[in-house]
Amino acid sequence: MNPPPADIGMPLTEVDTPALLVDLDAFEYNVKKLSEEVMASGLRLRPHAKTHKCAVIGQQQIAHGAVGLCCQKVSEAEAMVNGGIADVLISNQVVGTKKINRLMSIAKRATISVCVDDANNVADLSAAAVSFGVDLNVLVEIDVMRGRCGVEPGEPAVALAKLVCESPGLRFAGLQSYHGGAQHIREHHDRAAAIQGAIEASQTTKRLLEEAGLDCETVTGAGTGSYEFESQSGVYTELQCGSYVFMDADYGRNLNVSGDYVSHFRNSLFIYSTVMSVPNRRRAICDAGLKSIAFDSGMPLVVDEMGVSYDRPSDEHGTLTVSEDNHPLRLGEKIKLIPGHCDPTVNLHDWYVGIRAERVEALWPIVARGALW
Amino acid sequence: MNPPPADIGMPLTEVDTPALLVDLDAFEYNVKKLSEEVMASGLRLRPHAKTHKCAVIGQQQIAHGAVGLCCQKVSEAEAMVNGGIADVLISNQVVGTKKINRLMSIAKRATISVCVDDANNVADLSAAAVSFGVDLNVLVEIDVMRGRCGVEPGEPAVALAKLVCESPGLRFAGLQSYHGGAQHIREHHDRAAAIQGAIEASQTTKRLLEEAGLDCETVTGAGTGSYEFESQSGVYTELQCGSYVFMDADYGRNLNVSGDYVSHFRNSLFIYSTVMSVPNRRRAICDAGLKSIAFDSGMPLVVDEMGVSYDRPSDEHGTLTVSEDNHPLRLGEKIKLIPGHCDPTVNLHDWYVGIRAERVEALWPIVARGALW
Repeated sequence: MNPPPADIGMPLTEVDTPALLVDLDAFEYNVKKLSEEVMASGLRLRPHAKTHKCAVIGQQQIAHGAVGLCCQKVSEAEAMVNGGIADVLISNQVVGTKKINRLMSIAKRATISVCVDDANNVADLSAAAVSFGVDLNVLVEIDVMRGRCGVEPGEPAVALAKLVCESPGLRFAGLQSYHGGAQHIREHHDRAAAIQGAIEASQTTKRLLEEAGLDCETVTGAGTGSYEFESQSGVYTELQCGSYVFMDADYGRNLNVSGDYVSHFRNSLFIYSTVMSVPNRRRAICDAGLKSIAFDSGMPLVVDEMGVSYDRPSDEHGTLTVSEDNHPLRLGEKIKLIPGHCDPTVNLHDWYVGIRAERVEALWPIVARGALW
Repeated sequence: MNPPPADIGMPLTEVDTPALLVDLDAFEYNVKKLSEEVMASGLRLRPHAKTHKCAVIGQQQIAHGAVGLCCQKVSEAEAMVNGGIADVLISNQVVGTKKINRLMSIAKRATISVCVDDANNVADLSAAAVSFGVDLNVLVEIDVMRGRCGVEPGEPAVALAKLVCESPGLRFAGLQSYHGGAQHIREHHDRAAAIQGAIEASQTTKRLLEEAGLDCETVTGAGTGSYEFESQSGVYTELQCGSYVFMDADYGRNLNVSGDYVSHFRNSLFIYSTVMSVPNRRRAICDAGLKSIAFDSGMPLVVDEMGVSYDRPSDEHGTLTVSEDNHPLRLGEKIKLIPGHCDPTVNLHDWYVGIRAERVEALWPIVARGALW
């Protein structure tokens, strides 16, 4: 792990760049806001740690009422359990002997749940759970977005749930029903319509499970872009929002019911970058490129410089265009960027530099950075 | 740093996924091939460590005749010097007190060169060099791609070179003249034409420097896509190729003089990935997505499975389409992918898993992974 680019107590302007900044006021606002909303709805909140990969942040989410965290990888879950998180759902399939053994190892020390969509995988998990003496919570993932993992909703899901119930060491805990593809649909009613499909698939499957005598205690899913719909569905019991803690440029392009840009969470995550070359009045080069920002969801936005756009990344550089009416950028000047996509941007850094009132208040290690397994 | 996903001696098939594999035979072929070519041309080879970020690989390049390495960041150079590399050119501007101090620190222990394109930066470097008691080699970067860092070729470069010569602690070492934008121009003659512009700008600037009484001992630049042109230019003295050790899908789309795909280097870098869900005959999901592969230069290629394409990444998943005539992918099956772009892919991993004859022969730490400063 690289050393942090800042010392606690130093002014923001002295932080070395590129650095991953967290505006602590905005971050805390987001954590509290979603917790209160979900509490009011009577559902459980299980935020996704794939976004932040940081046990310190997970602990704050739990202090605000979250029942546990989601992770996407076993090694990510290990990092969270090692960091004091007692309840983790791996919202994903875990395939292969090594990963399954690591899963059982953390299930000896924490409450662990995992998703399945395959009968052979259920057999492998069962054998390992018996071998390790573990009771593993298993959710059947249904494919509500028609395109990634999961069994078909309805009877195929019921058949797999029955198999889980019959498998020693495994406890059927409910349904994983997450529509990732809906999160960034721009128009509010289109997003609602996409989630309505997931809601109906979940309702049908839950009804069939109950008719088959299986208790479906949990239906879990939802993200920052869609949770308002799952909250009101009557079928979801648990929400998995992740990006709400930070937001990003792409989530900021979603529209609310009034057709305005969504604004119920605040941008709390920034890349801090230095202007390292000013070839001319209209062009400046900053020190953050493909290795410190993710570009899969577009260019980062430049904060507080209305006339500056980030036009093109290269591996270690960003090319900025400066309009005539913006003040000229100076060599050594530092700028803040809002990344297009928060999750893969975070995964490029080792430390959060927590800022309040223009001063470094916290350094939080991104303990699951690069936890790919 | 995460633990390696393999043990030395284990069969390839037991390596955990996603993993960054290096085919050692192909890698060694590439290292030797370029070294021999450059030696024959009488030029110096200074491979770019921004590609591999690994001192073990740098040492092998030097064992094959490289005069040193290039780095893009001070922290990357620190990692290389700490790993035993005695001569590093930072082919980039170093701006800001912290970074400049770190630069001087390594210049106390190794031969360090850096690029400049700004008079104020020259003053900052000079003051720090004097303060640390260092003689720093300084190259003037000229903008031969019209769009990133660098001063204009010709008189502006000469003026800055004179300033370097007059600055205590600094030694004017020559010109940095790299055309990054030309590396991936597909057609051979278009690539040649783009580099011809860089060659002419370098020739003009070198002549003006000599007319001004300045010795321009080094003209350094070139990449894997273009070095054949710089080699024959008569003006370049040093080549900075980096990607040649690994190649990638995007370099593989360049065409040679005959209009065929380039083939003088071999693909040695692969992402090893497990099929973790097989929802149906035509769709399979693997465990490598945005957090283990870079997508800025397109989708990865699937090796040895003619009828399988990697169609869409999500953060931790890859969606594969399997043609009817391909054998069905099985749950737990492992596949090899050639990344679209090697450099930012490497930066997502902590270890190279070196493979020979289907067995793990080496584990090399990517010591400058995340070295952003």
